[in-house]
Order: sequence, then C-alpha cells, then structure tokens
Amino acid sequence: MRENERMPTIQRLPALRDLPLPLVQAPMAGYQGATLALAVGEAGGLGSIPAATLTPEALAAELAPLAAAGRPYNVNFFCHVPPVPEPAQEAAWREALAPYYAEAGIDPAAIAPGAGRRPFDAAMADVLERFRPPVVSFHFGLPPPELLARVKAWGATVWSSATTVDEARWLVRHGADAVIAQGLEAGGHRGHFLDPDLTRQLGTLALVPQLVAAVPVPVIAAGGIADAAGVAAAMALGAAAVQVGTAFLLCPECTTSAVHRAALQSDTARHTALTRLFTGRPARGIVNRVMRELGPMNPAAPAFPLATAAIAPLRAWAEGQGRGDFTPLWAGQQASACRAVPASDVVKALAAGFSRA
Amino acid sequence: MRENERMPTIQRLPALRDLPLPLVQAPMAGYQGATLALAVGEAGGLGSIPAATLTPEALAAELAPLAAAGRPYNVNFFCHVPPVPEPAQEAAWREALAPYYAEAGIDPAAIAPGAGRRPFDAAMADVLERFRPPVVSFHFGLPPPELLARVKAWGATVWSSATTVDEARWLVRHGADAVIAQGLEAGGHRGHFLDPDLTRQLGTLALVPQLVAAVPVPVIAAGGIADAAGVAAAMALGAAAVQVGTAFLLCPECTTSAVHRAALQSDTARHTALTRLFTGRPARGIVNRVMRELGPMNPAAPAFPLATAAIAPLRAWAEGQGRGDFTPLWAGQQASACRAVPASDVVKALAAGFSRA
Repeated sequence: MRENERMPTIQRLPALRDLPLPLVQAPMAGYQGATLALAVGEAGGLGSIPAATLTPEALAAELAPLAAAGRPYNVNFFCHVPPVPEPAQEAAWREALAPYYAEAGIDPAAIAPGAGRRPFDAAMADVLERFRPPVVSFHFGLPPPELLARVKAWGATVWSSATTVDEARWLVRHGADAVIAQGLEAGGHRGHFLDPDLTRQLGTLALVPQLVAAVPVPVIAAGGIADAAGVAAAMALGAAAVQVGTAFLLCPECTTSAVHRAALQSDTARHTALTRLFTGRPARGIVNRVMRELGPMNPAAPAFPLATAAIAPLRAWAEGQGRGDFTPLWAGQQASACRAVPASDVVKALAAGFSRA
Repeated sequence: MRENERMPTIQRLPALRDLPLPLVQAPMAGYQGATLALAVGEAGGLGSIPAATLTPEALAAELAPLAAAGRPYNVNFFCHVPPVPEPAQEAAWREALAPYYAEAGIDPAAIAPGAGRRPFDAAMADVLERFRPPVVSFHFGLPPPELLARVKAWGATVWSSATTVDEARWLVRHGADAVIAQGLEAGGHRGHFLDPDLTRQLGTLALVPQLVAAVPVPVIAAGGIADAAGVAAAMALGAAAVQVGTAFLLCPECTTSAVHRAALQSDTARHTALTRLFTGRPARGIVNRVMRELGPMNPAAPAFPLATAAIAPLRAWAEGQGRGDFTPLWAGQQASACRAVPASDVVKALAAGFSRA
C-alpha cells in the first residue's frame, strides 16, 4: 500500500496539496486574527481567521496579509439563524444578573440589547470574493445554498463542524468537502445544529471513528488535542488532520486577555464546563464565578447570540479589576497543557505526533 | 531505548508478567461471569469477574474455574458507602413511577425496598483469600484500609477507576498500584468518588494524558475503545493498557439480555446518555423510554443503589413483553461498533491495535 493510501490526509484536497502539515489552527473568535494565522502558516500548519465577531471591513483587513503571504489559509464563519428577541426572556436574564449589576454599580437600563455575532451573509461573501481563500469553514451547519454556491465558485474547499453521525451525513449531503469532528472535549462553542440535546455529544475518541466510517470525505479531529500524543491518537483513529485551538491561547500571537491567560496558567484550568451564560449557546470554558453561581446552563440566558449584551458590562467591570468572573474563558479539556511559547513552538511540538502516527 | 521503556504496559506489574496482551476485559456486573472472563483470558487478555451483584457464595462459584485455568484474572468490586434510606425520597421516586405502575398493573405496595448492590466487605475478602486473585479492582474509590490490607496481603495488584487528576492522585496515595482512566465515553457507572459534579468528567482523549502526567503508576485507558484504531489511539496517549467492555456485550459468552442485544444492534445504540434512574448513580446506557420520559438525571431517584428496587418490577414487566423500556441498557459511546462474534474474535480485532501503536 502506498503511503498516501495508508494515511489519507487533508492534503489530498486540491486546495491543500502544498500544506506541509495536516494541522489546522482552530479559529478562535475574539482571541486571534491574522498574526496567529500567519505564524501557524509559516510553521507549516493551516492558519485560520475567525470572522464571527468581525465587520466586513475588519475581515478584509485580516485577510489582506494572509493573501499576501501566498500560503493556504482558512476563514471561519458562524451560520446560525439570528433569533427574534423575546422581551420576556431578556427581562428574565437581566433579573438573573440584577444582583451583579447592583454589586458593580451598573444601571441595567443603560445597557443596549445587541446581536453580538453575525452569521455569514452576502456582505461577507463580497469580501471573500476579493480574496478567494482556499478554505472556508463554518460552525452551526452551512449557509443557505446561494451563499454556499458563491464560496464554491472560486474553488474553495468547504468545511463544517459535525458533532454526530447525523450531522456529518447532513453536511456532506449539503456540500461539505470535509467535516470537523468536534469532540466534547473541545473549547468554545459546540457546533451542533440538528439536535440541541447535549447527551448526543460524543467524546473525540468515540466521534472520530464513527464519522470516518460514516462519510466519504476527510474527517478533521478536534477536541482535547494539545500535544504530540493527542495528534498521534487522533491520526490513529483515522483522522485526515487535527484541529487544535486551546494549545495556542497562551501564544504571544494571540490576543487572549490577561485574565484569560492567568486562568489558563492556574489550576482552575483543570475544570471546564459547557455554559450558555455568555452567548446563549453551549460553549466550553474554564469554570468561573458567574458559572458557579448561576449554574453554567441557566435557562434564563436568551438564545444565541443575544445573551452577550446584558453580561458584557459586567465582564468589562470585572476585567477592569483584574478578575475574569464574568469573562468567557473558552478552553478545552486539555487547557492545563497550554504553554506560553511562540506559535511556531506549538506547531513543532504537535508536528512530532504526525511522525509517530 | 529498550522496548519496555518506550511503551510501559501493565505487564511490568509483577502479577501480570505473563499476560500476553495489555488488554483488560471490563467487568460488567449483571452481564457476564466466568464464561467471558475465561474466553478473554484464553485469547490473551485479562478476564474480569464483576462481583458487585454477587453473594459471597456466587462469587466463589465464579472464581473457581478462573483459578483452575491458571491464568491471571481480575475481580472487581464496588466500594460505595451504602446510603441511609430516606422515606421521603423513596416516596418521591415511587410517585414519579406511579403512571408506569398503573400502566403495568403493578401494585407498588407489594414492592420491597432493597439494596441492590453491595460494597466490598469482610465476607468478600474471606472468599478472595481462598483464591488469591492476581488483580483486584474497585469502582467508586477504595475499600477501608483494613480491607485493602487483606487484599494486598497475598500480593494482589490493586486498581481503581479515576475520572479526574485529583482522583488518580488520591488513589495512588491510598494504595492503588494502577489507575483506570475512565473517560466520559465509557458505558455503565461513572466511577467518580471525590466530586459529584459531572462537568468534571473528561473525555478519554483528554483524561488519559493528564493521568499519565499526574501519577507514577500504570494508567489503563477506558471509555469509547471498541476496535484496533481505538486501542492504537489509547496507547499513543501513553496508556499502559486498555480496558474494553461494550465491545464484548454481543458475544455469546455474555449473558446480555435479548432486549439489550436488540438495542445494541439497532440505530438506537448511537444515542447513549448518563442516567441515574436505574440505580441512583450516573451510568451510561442507551436512551430508552423511561430515560426520555422522566429525564435521564431525574432527581427523584434515590441514592445509589436504592433506586433499583422500585424500577425493577417495571423492567421485568416490560422485558416480559420484549421491550427494554425500563432496562438499564448499559453501553458506551461506541456501542454501534459491537459485533455478535465470539470473545476471542473481539480480542483478536483489538490486539491488532497494539502492533500499530
């Protein structure tokens, strides 16, 4: 058997023929931009730009240096359907946060409700058409067919996250060229989009082989992979690549806040949980005060992404005092393995896992 | 570096020097006895006898053929502290089950409350002393020091399940010679014993390397391992052995019930959840009617193992009609990989993963 048959990787995707390593830097909205993506690209991995919190103008500014570098890269979008705001739900949420507003001396009447994160739309597609990124990835499903067709038109390879066999099959039926198997260990937002029942979410070790068996496209393993051993394990499970996020969070190329960095370097990083308090959708982060006190899955928080607006001033207030009590401290279940080293060192450490596999 | 340094396995434990494969058949109380353990031992793995639901006499009957076979084997015990029954909690539980009693025509007044499962005790130690099993493993911590000393007296190697770094360290401090890293994918009862907060439970891919780094004893990976790829992945993570349970459930050597076998062979096996309905402690099983209707973690169920008595007659009634609606259908997150083949075939398939690792 030839080597490329024994271990099919994402490098068999035409857009990624020249990618040195089947290693994807996970897009982490709010924590990194072009600086990290460029460093990872230079080190041999696939850098990613998270676009969920960017305006079209800001996205263009992030993409310009990546396009100039001439290496493959990935741009990631959320593709949720923005919910209709429900005043009663918003009131319940502000009621739950009321003791904190009082403690912080914040007037809740002065807080404007806001959307927080925008899904992929025509304005973003306009920006992408200027840059023609080789990889466009999505979270929470796929965009509507007419938008997806625009992305496919310049030959981009399209990826999206799958957390179950049903989601992987759905994505392939609807045009995904690869699926990201997002195991339950992963930091940040869970990508599920077919069934909100969290008991359907699988650990990476169980999810990857099930998706490899279920779909004919490359499966990219994500969740809990933070070192060479994790890379070797994921590749042994049949993955075509690994996606790593948390392991980069302490790199100087990330914009990770000081409170977040401190949490990652403390023992508290050993305890993460899924929480909907910060955005309205379950996402994994280090357990902090508001998660402990309200319960991480408190139903008072409104639907994604509407929960963000009301908690944002509390986050700013606490961070101003050096505390991460109201900060989404996104991190996966291997957060305690994070090291404060340049991204190229993280890539190098992970790369050793491919030669073992 | 010599081979045994590069990949330290449980065979470095004196009691297991002659074990052909670092593969442990997970003890599955209620689903198997000596027949499976003997078959696994003959095929090169470590067979296990689950003792949690046995009387001392029944345990002796199971151990006799294993001792006669002359190969290493493992005996497993629960070591929970039996709770004080709370009449109000029992009443709440029967109230939650009342519609089902009515449907089944069962008189709840006729149901005797009962203990269900017994922890390791002096009577069990008496039995063990007759057989001197080479491996004695525990779930839910370790037994009191005087009982543990009796087990150690004949040179048995003592193992217990750890679901967090803190538990692994606690077990080693209290005398464990190896720890079983029970990842969240595992079927059956979660083994946590220091903190009931389920958000502390980790996926296998995240748990194994953290325990390997935290404790100086062999770490046995468990949870979601069902084929050679899973074995290779677990060994890549630094495990000294793998423990596999669910993959054996369809073997003719198991006593798995007909409704359980049918569930494992159906698409429903793709959806498992942690539930406390059947015993009072969270355990992973295939989602069935009572889990869907009451919610798998319904707080009405009394403390382990007291929940069992009130639901047992409903289980018997439904199973009599060929339905597993009230049956604990224990299974891990790789249940859909189960095959109805002899245990030796399962061992052979798993063994291929060690040569890949």
